[in-house]
Amino acid sequence: MKVGIVGASGYSGELLTRLLARHPRVRIQRVTSRQHAGKPVAEVIPALRGLPGALAFTDSDPQALAADTDTEIYFLALPHGVSASFAQPLVDAGKKVIDLSADFRLLSESCYREYYGTDHPNPELLRRSVYVIPELTHVDDWKDAPLIAAPGCYPTSILVPLIPLLRDGKLTGREIVIASFSGVSGAGKKLAEDFLFCERAESVKAYGIPRHRHLSEIEEQLSGAAGADVIVQFTPHLAPMRRGLASTIVVPSGGTTIEGLYECWNNAYEGKPFVQILASGEAPDTQHVTGTNRIDVSAVYDERTDRFVITTAEDNLMKGAGGQAVQIMNIWLGFDETAGLL
Amino acid sequence: MKVGIVGASGYSGELLTRLLARHPRVRIQRVTSRQHAGKPVAEVIPALRGLPGALAFTDSDPQALAADTDTEIYFLALPHGVSASFAQPLVDAGKKVIDLSADFRLLSESCYREYYGTDHPNPELLRRSVYVIPELTHVDDWKDAPLIAAPGCYPTSILVPLIPLLRDGKLTGREIVIASFSGVSGAGKKLAEDFLFCERAESVKAYGIPRHRHLSEIEEQLSGAAGADVIVQFTPHLAPMRRGLASTIVVPSGGTTIEGLYECWNNAYEGKPFVQILASGEAPDTQHVTGTNRIDVSAVYDERTDRFVITTAEDNLMKGAGGQAVQIMNIWLGFDETAGLL
Amino acid sequence: MKVGIVGASGYSGELLTRLLARHPRVRIQRVTSRQHAGKPVAEVIPALRGLPGALAFTDSDPQALAADTDTEIYFLALPHGVSASFAQPLVDAGKKVIDLSADFRLLSESCYREYYGTDHPNPELLRRSVYVIPELTHVDDWKDAPLIAAPGCYPTSILVPLIPLLRDGKLTGREIVIASFSGVSGAGKKLAEDFLFCERAESVKAYGIPRHRHLSEIEEQLSGAAGADVIVQFTPHLAPMRRGLASTIVVPSGGTTIEGLYECWNNAYEGKPFVQILASGEAPDTQHVTGTNRIDVSAVYDERTDRFVITTAEDNLMKGAGGQAVQIMNIWLGFDETAGLL
Amino acid sequence: MKVGIVGASGYSGELLTRLLARHPRVRIQRVTSRQHAGKPVAEVIPALRGLPGALAFTDSDPQALAADTDTEIYFLALPHGVSASFAQPLVDAGKKVIDLSADFRLLSESCYREYYGTDHPNPELLRRSVYVIPELTHVDDWKDAPLIAAPGCYPTSILVPLIPLLRDGKLTGREIVIASFSGVSGAGKKLAEDFLFCERAESVKAYGIPRHRHLSEIEEQLSGAAGADVIVQFTPHLAPMRRGLASTIVVPSGGTTIEGLYECWNNAYEGKPFVQILASGEAPDTQHVTGTNRIDVSAVYDERTDRFVITTAEDNLMKGAGGQAVQIMNIWLGFDETAGLL
Repeated sequence: MKVGIVGASGYSGELLTRLLARHPRVRIQRVTSRQHAGKPVAEVIPALRGLPGALAFTDSDPQALAADTDTEIYFLALPHGVSASFAQPLVDAGKKVIDLSADFRLLSESCYREYYGTDHPNPELLRRSVYVIPELTHVDDWKDAPLIAAPGCYPTSILVPLIPLLRDGKLTGREIVIASFSGVSGAGKKLAEDFLFCERAESVKAYGIPRHRHLSEIEEQLSGAAGADVIVQFTPHLAPMRRGLASTIVVPSGGTTIEGLYECWNNAYEGKPFVQILASGEAPDTQHVTGTNRIDVSAVYDERTDRFVITTAEDNLMKGAGGQAVQIMNIWLGFDETAGLL
Repeated sequence: MKVGIVGASGYSGELLTRLLARHPRVRIQRVTSRQHAGKPVAEVIPALRGLPGALAFTDSDPQALAADTDTEIYFLALPHGVSASFAQPLVDAGKKVIDLSADFRLLSESCYREYYGTDHPNPELLRRSVYVIPELTHVDDWKDAPLIAAPGCYPTSILVPLIPLLRDGKLTGREIVIASFSGVSGAGKKLAEDFLFCERAESVKAYGIPRHRHLSEIEEQLSGAAGADVIVQFTPHLAPMRRGLASTIVVPSGGTTIEGLYECWNNAYEGKPFVQILASGEAPDTQHVTGTNRIDVSAVYDERTDRFVITTAEDNLMKGAGGQAVQIMNIWLGFDETAGLL
Repeated sequence: MKVGIVGASGYSGELLTRLLARHPRVRIQRVTSRQHAGKPVAEVIPALRGLPGALAFTDSDPQALAADTDTEIYFLALPHGVSASFAQPLVDAGKKVIDLSADFRLLSESCYREYYGTDHPNPELLRRSVYVIPELTHVDDWKDAPLIAAPGCYPTSILVPLIPLLRDGKLTGREIVIASFSGVSGAGKKLAEDFLFCERAESVKAYGIPRHRHLSEIEEQLSGAAGADVIVQFTPHLAPMRRGLASTIVVPSGGTTIEGLYECWNNAYEGKPFVQILASGEAPDTQHVTGTNRIDVSAVYDERTDRFVITTAEDNLMKGAGGQAVQIMNIWLGFDETAGLL
Repeated sequence: MKVGIVGASGYSGELLTRLLARHPRVRIQRVTSRQHAGKPVAEVIPALRGLPGALAFTDSDPQALAADTDTEIYFLALPHGVSASFAQPLVDAGKKVIDLSADFRLLSESCYREYYGTDHPNPELLRRSVYVIPELTHVDDWKDAPLIAAPGCYPTSILVPLIPLLRDGKLTGREIVIASFSGVSGAGKKLAEDFLFCERAESVKAYGIPRHRHLSEIEEQLSGAAGADVIVQFTPHLAPMRRGLASTIVVPSGGTTIEGLYECWNNAYEGKPFVQILASGEAPDTQHVTGTNRIDVSAVYDERTDRFVITTAEDNLMKGAGGQAVQIMNIWLGFDETAGLL
């Protein structure tokens, strides 16, 4: 099975390329980067030095990619707004598409307009696309879709613990307050003063408040699970580490016990290799999941406030981006879910 | 004016020693450390190499310290529980005492028992001690006290923004949710696997939930300001940096506007050199305050949730510990508030 | 094929366990730790959470390990001096042993005495053991040995570039000056103040000069390659990172051209998947090799001084320890050299 | 005394501004930045929030600066090549100038041409300027110069230990091999991918070999001290820290004993507050000097190689740049050498 990666020079695309280059069931047929077209991949992604073969970046022309009859599945690791212009020709040519951008993550066009400031560029394709968290969206509901939207890093860390609880009515979705902390790679490989080593080292700060763009995706999915409008307070922060993302979610118990919460999680995630439920009181640590496709999840009950404090940790580039995209591909193509991810 | 520092080998005591060694109005007469007695200070605190004079650690005998007629003011930078045994003889000898431990921070003995698991060792002195945030506690209310309890690092980052709002009735104190992130020095110089470089680098994790000991101090002070019981949700985290502490506080607006909130802060902190009120939307960054005695404070209003998101940043060893202790001394002794702190 | 890991709670042992747990050709039969006996492995090594099966630590009794007829190969990840007491019974029982400690790395007993301060505990076994850098020691010369000594992290970074040049007479081995920089994990999981996060963050310092223990191993191997006594100047440093090791080696050209140097390297390492020769002028970067079993090697010629500046980078826990040990096992057992290492 | 800072938006200029803003004997009259003209200083340098007064950046017009009769001394913190165009009009107007760039550091025009690729823009002023390491250049030799060139960060860390030894004939200047490690701020506030947090974290690498520009300055000064041409091998590295610079210098003993070396240093630096000579065997650590204007210096003798291993540590932005410039000003204007630097 031959795959293509469009836009492989950012941090997510780079990691995706590393994963697919070692994947036992696929071969990278094409890897594109406007900036690096013509260069060997190992020159731009030094972690791939010594890779057998002579993979090189090609230019990113949507028509040429669509016309490539060898490549059956494409990953789009492009900035939001750019993905949409690649998706249509690829879908038209019958390719499977997994999009890591935000372009096809929202169900609602008006929500897209509100958060991104313009009309959605392709509402028709948006309607046919499916947003997939592999552990939560049954494959029968998306295996025939032309395009899968892979979730964002913050949403994954929040939706994995909350969706089963909302679906089962264990929580009401009211009064949810979330603080999340991302490693700096979450901001992408942007040349901005704010992302220089000397600015971020020894620094923690909140940003993007009160309306970070991922909020739209988080609330839409939570609302779907709850069957009612869910509005959350979400404060993202940057922490001085390369990779890793931790979320701390405070939510009223709604009468659910901590045992009930764990039972719900255990039912939802039994046998799921990439969701680990930790004992109450054992807090997830980003370092424990860095380099893995795992999300670790835990909770404590605070009787003083009658709230749960739910904590999660994932690698923002793995379970939060490229790893989860590969996991989606594995399921889509009928491979072992963990192929290339251990 | 001659000062003594008791227990100067931890991170707070070390910083305090550095500050006092350069202070224009005092001279360090004694600096004690059981572990390092007899050694020159510069051997243990390399940042003080080249300090003129020949300051050396002495042993920590409470009676000997009390008998030293030259030293008029003592700083206690000792573990909780140990401070109390030094405080009484020093107070009896007429020394002024500034305690950086938690021993005299709580008003309520029962609260102490609940959080520390034993009866308070010296309730009589506890009643005569005063908890002082220099910007919030009028000097007339504490200048004659025998012992001042300097606030903890987490409490400072939370009380500075909230107390004026509660006192003025701008907030009700209900539904407060706090996430805080501390540099690793906040844990002290403890030889535990958890604080090794390789365990903390590239790691963010929550800890001490749901009942971190600082919670007792936070709630007692907030309740005093609100004139009613205040219960908060407080989740501390460790972040991979040496120094710095950020707090993100989510609180219902209670009908107060963002302008009203800022007006309250401006009234409370006008002319206060160590509290900086940043424009709404400009988030405090721990790196901007590291090495200073400042706390930066900001807030945004989220109309979707009708809550304020209040963010603060301070250096946990300065405004959160040693720097604030020196600030208290400066006011107590009638020096310029900023002496030795710029 | 069943393997055992003795002493898996240090950083090297932990990584080794992670590698072997995912290795396609072996199964971990035993993993020992005196400190953690009885605990599930995933509790101590959180990166292994979710590992299928129920691997738990057992105690480290040499006789019991020797008596285990299922386990055919043992890795010793023990402190120096301790390895020797496990090696003999395992060898007597016919097990293959790969030792990651320094106990069997030196050829000379007197050199051992000089650097370790005691007589070698088992000179007879020392004589039968072989020191193996997989790219440099032909398998025919060690496949029948009872015990293989895996090289240290510093030595690997220095011997890989220098041995081919000395063997071919391209360099004389005189006037070699080396500065090396190790991530903090190189010091092991030691509970010492010096390895606390707050002590090592934002810190670079030399240590162990002028006679670090690895010097004995470096010089013995270089002398063997040169056919003459080689004495080097070696200064190790700690750098504020978890993993990674860089060496900068300055050596007189001895009349060899930069082209001659590269030709020698290309001959020695052609087709070797874990040694990458970078173009002259492109400096290896520890971040590019972290998480891989690769060593990157480069050199420039300085006509002003008639010296080469050779630079290398490796992951101290992979090519510098556990990864290289697995590579040795792969070759020894006839597996693909890269099995479990990509 | 009123001072001006030209080009205060880089890391050196920023630190210089912080130092001068708190200096007890001077007042900042002008602080310029083309990029930030019109903005309050505290908006660009958050560490200065709360500074009394209303200091704002002005544009950087050399004629306007020269015409400002209030300002008597100017610091130039500009890129090399730009400084020269400001220096002449300021000198013509009778201002004292301290230049932190490389423009006036070299004695030899041909050396400048070799390393900077163009003719020196102002050889006449170059000849009248003096390169000053405050501890090594007697004030009588430079107090009447119109312009002082402040040394670079790498040169300071190398010249402080070596110059006294070469002057006294303790070393010959032959076979010197230097490896240096700089925090990332040494590269300035450049918007290049190489200086992003995610590229530099967990990374050590050599760069700029074999002919880093600072080499010209190092060799010229060493040659002057030795009275003979000195050629050194110099390899700079980047280390994952914000500030700090360590140098490890290997040099043949030339028959000098370690006691002789220390005696020479003690004579040269007795009473110098910013040079600390550490006991042999105690290695300088960058963390111990960060935030100070100190350089720590130590050495061990290696009898095996008959060489000294000299190690130094400084803060690259303090003793390596802005702090040393203030020290020079203090001496030039007759202030206490440590004013504003403790």
